[in-house]
Amino acid sequence: MNKSRVEAVSDGVFAIAITLLVLTISAPDSSKYGDLGHQLANRWPALAAYVVSFAVIGIMWFNHHSIFAHFERVDRPFFFLNLVLLMTVAFLPYPTGILGEALRAGRGQRTAAVFYSITMTINGFAWTALWLYASSRRRLLNASFPEGQRRSATIAFSSGAFVYVLTIGVAVLSAYACLAFHAALAVYYALDPLSRRANAANPGRSR
Amino acid sequence: MNKSRVEAVSDGVFAIAITLLVLTISAPDSSKYGDLGHQLANRWPALAAYVVSFAVIGIMWFNHHSIFAHFERVDRPFFFLNLVLLMTVAFLPYPTGILGEALRAGRGQRTAAVFYSITMTINGFAWTALWLYASSRRRLLNASFPEGQRRSATIAFSSGAFVYVLTIGVAVLSAYACLAFHAALAVYYALDPLSRRANAANPGRSR
Amino acid sequence: MNKSRVEAVSDGVFAIAITLLVLTISAPDSSKYGDLGHQLANRWPALAAYVVSFAVIGIMWFNHHSIFAHFERVDRPFFFLNLVLLMTVAFLPYPTGILGEALRAGRGQRTAAVFYSITMTINGFAWTALWLYASSRRRLLNASFPEGQRRSATIAFSSGAFVYVLTIGVAVLSAYACLAFHAALAVYYALDPLSRRANAANPGRSR
Amino acid sequence: MNKSRVEAVSDGVFAIAITLLVLTISAPDSSKYGDLGHQLANRWPALAAYVVSFAVIGIMWFNHHSIFAHFERVDRPFFFLNLVLLMTVAFLPYPTGILGEALRAGRGQRTAAVFYSITMTINGFAWTALWLYASSRRRLLNASFPEGQRRSATIAFSSGAFVYVLTIGVAVLSAYACLAFHAALAVYYALDPLSRRANAANPGRSR
Repeated sequence: MNKSRVEAVSDGVFAIAITLLVLTISAPDSSKYGDLGHQLANRWPALAAYVVSFAVIGIMWFNHHSIFAHFERVDRPFFFLNLVLLMTVAFLPYPTGILGEALRAGRGQRTAAVFYSITMTINGFAWTALWLYASSRRRLLNASFPEGQRRSATIAFSSGAFVYVLTIGVAVLSAYACLAFHAALAVYYALDPLSRRANAANPGRSR
Repeated sequence: MNKSRVEAVSDGVFAIAITLLVLTISAPDSSKYGDLGHQLANRWPALAAYVVSFAVIGIMWFNHHSIFAHFERVDRPFFFLNLVLLMTVAFLPYPTGILGEALRAGRGQRTAAVFYSITMTINGFAWTALWLYASSRRRLLNASFPEGQRRSATIAFSSGAFVYVLTIGVAVLSAYACLAFHAALAVYYALDPLSRRANAANPGRSR
Repeated sequence: MNKSRVEAVSDGVFAIAITLLVLTISAPDSSKYGDLGHQLANRWPALAAYVVSFAVIGIMWFNHHSIFAHFERVDRPFFFLNLVLLMTVAFLPYPTGILGEALRAGRGQRTAAVFYSITMTINGFAWTALWLYASSRRRLLNASFPEGQRRSATIAFSSGAFVYVLTIGVAVLSAYACLAFHAALAVYYALDPLSRRANAANPGRSR
Repeated sequence: MNKSRVEAVSDGVFAIAITLLVLTISAPDSSKYGDLGHQLANRWPALAAYVVSFAVIGIMWFNHHSIFAHFERVDRPFFFLNLVLLMTVAFLPYPTGILGEALRAGRGQRTAAVFYSITMTINGFAWTALWLYASSRRRLLNASFPEGQRRSATIAFSSGAFVYVLTIGVAVLSAYACLAFHAALAVYYALDPLSRRANAANPGRSR
């Protein structure tokens, strides 16, 4: 399996997961459409969870491309590590729906936020594993990827995974703070320091 | 991320959202299949909402391609603006289902139509933002895109977004009139004056 | 929009619709899992409807490719006729689910079969319209497509649409006979006389 | 239809089926969110079934590519055999959901495991049929595929199908053992002896 195939396969899962998210917002109770406005207003936390997860997957998608641009090739273990990463992405609609519903219902919020954060933490570790596998001894890296970048990226990926562990703690304190934290992390990754710096070093490649 | 990648990613979301729409039509009550004909006949407004949203997404898809043909390249802020646009597309099945159900049930129609129109309005503003970002100071435009077209397209996109604000007002008056209005807007955009004129000016490019 | 883009877009809708079909099979009642074997056995007509619709979409997909191979280019009206065709494909999971549920419940079968057949008839007419638009005065046809083939294909497409009207009549008589008829039509189109003959005339092109 | 088209089509179905799997995990009862932690803990067998099916489809996807790399071309019967294979993949979310729910509810587990194993067995026979059709008299094989490999692959595919028959027997004994067996088979196919050996013989091609 060549690299562009793995990218196409990953794109497919990202695109489907991001679009399926809409199915996680619970439909209003059809026997109470007389009160539809109230029911929809009630659902704002589910919409917020939707928007955060949409942003999370969209930004992850972008960074997936940025990072793949630095790989020369892929191999079989890489495919399976990437598959684990894709599983956490494809799974995200499930905790998103539960978090939205818990916030709407006003019950089980912390449990739901912990569950959401655990999913994101596993996702974070999958990213770290993918990077460590691909970059250690420059296994799959482009020759042009700067060695200094490699070390700083390794630190960034490793610490990033532990930041997600932190979100589990925040979830225990407050589900809303936890959701806001995930939104902030998404914005942080949208700025994507790794790919920016690497692009600066190697502008032609990762465009 | 290069332009063709962003197009492929967008195509994926458009294709999935347009096909997921079918899940928004409420299934007949399975305990009353003796009366299935009546139940299906009852659902014609849900089918109408389905057809309108299908047309809306399909035509948007077409115009997304037409407009991308005028871009030389894409950049990071453009990717995120496009992501916001895709979010409104991916979200559309939710208000479509609610509008169809409200029209069928004969309750909550105006609320549902307002909700649908708000979604379409946000979508309209996302289009405007995408165009303004890409075209201002010809940031991402092809060199061959005529300067006169740029100005008229900017006027068309800006006024287009405000027409969607109008649909919110129509929704308050009548949900059926609102649905008809959205259908009419879809037909208008199917004729796509921008891409026609631009194609006339630049026939080889946007084919 | 160029031809390969329209093909990719169509592929997307075919792939999603065919895979979404599985969601139309009603889940067993989770409060009666003690009797799961009976519940699953009960669902054989839903499985049969699933298999028939899967075959219908899969074979349509194949023929979509075969026919597109004879087109030199596509244009805007063609895109919208193709969009109507895709809408009938994307919609098919809905009547499939209803037919399967009606056959399982033993109520509303004829209504469900008529509804399914009407969907397939609209699909048949969409195919005819697509072909007539593309082939009349050889508008979009390859120069190498034989003129004699064009006439016989036009006859085949036009009569094909009316065969689907027939299935509505069969549905009134028996839902099972109707489902079998649709299965037989799928097999007939799998043999695809048009593309076979055209391939014989023009073997290099449509491979 | 050329080979890369069939691969793209297959990729689409694999990507959608693997991502749809998440919809098979039953949502917690929204009236009991006070007890959400217990409800989620209760669902671990549904999560296990999800992970196994995700791995099964992901690995099948990989091997689909590996095997296709050995084919010179595809033809019409091959397309339809591949369509049958894709149907068993697209169908897998249905028995996965039932197995997860049966294990969670503690009722109907064996029936559910038998149903899951029957689906996998049909899938196994579809693989065998695909291989036998493509390889017998080297119909679609690359000239460079070694003849010795062809014979051993035929033995592997044929015996593989019968191993899946075995899983039906295991399902009768224990649903959990059956799920573990399917997980073990997925790991076995991840090691993919056929493609490894063939790659060794023909390293440039199947990369």
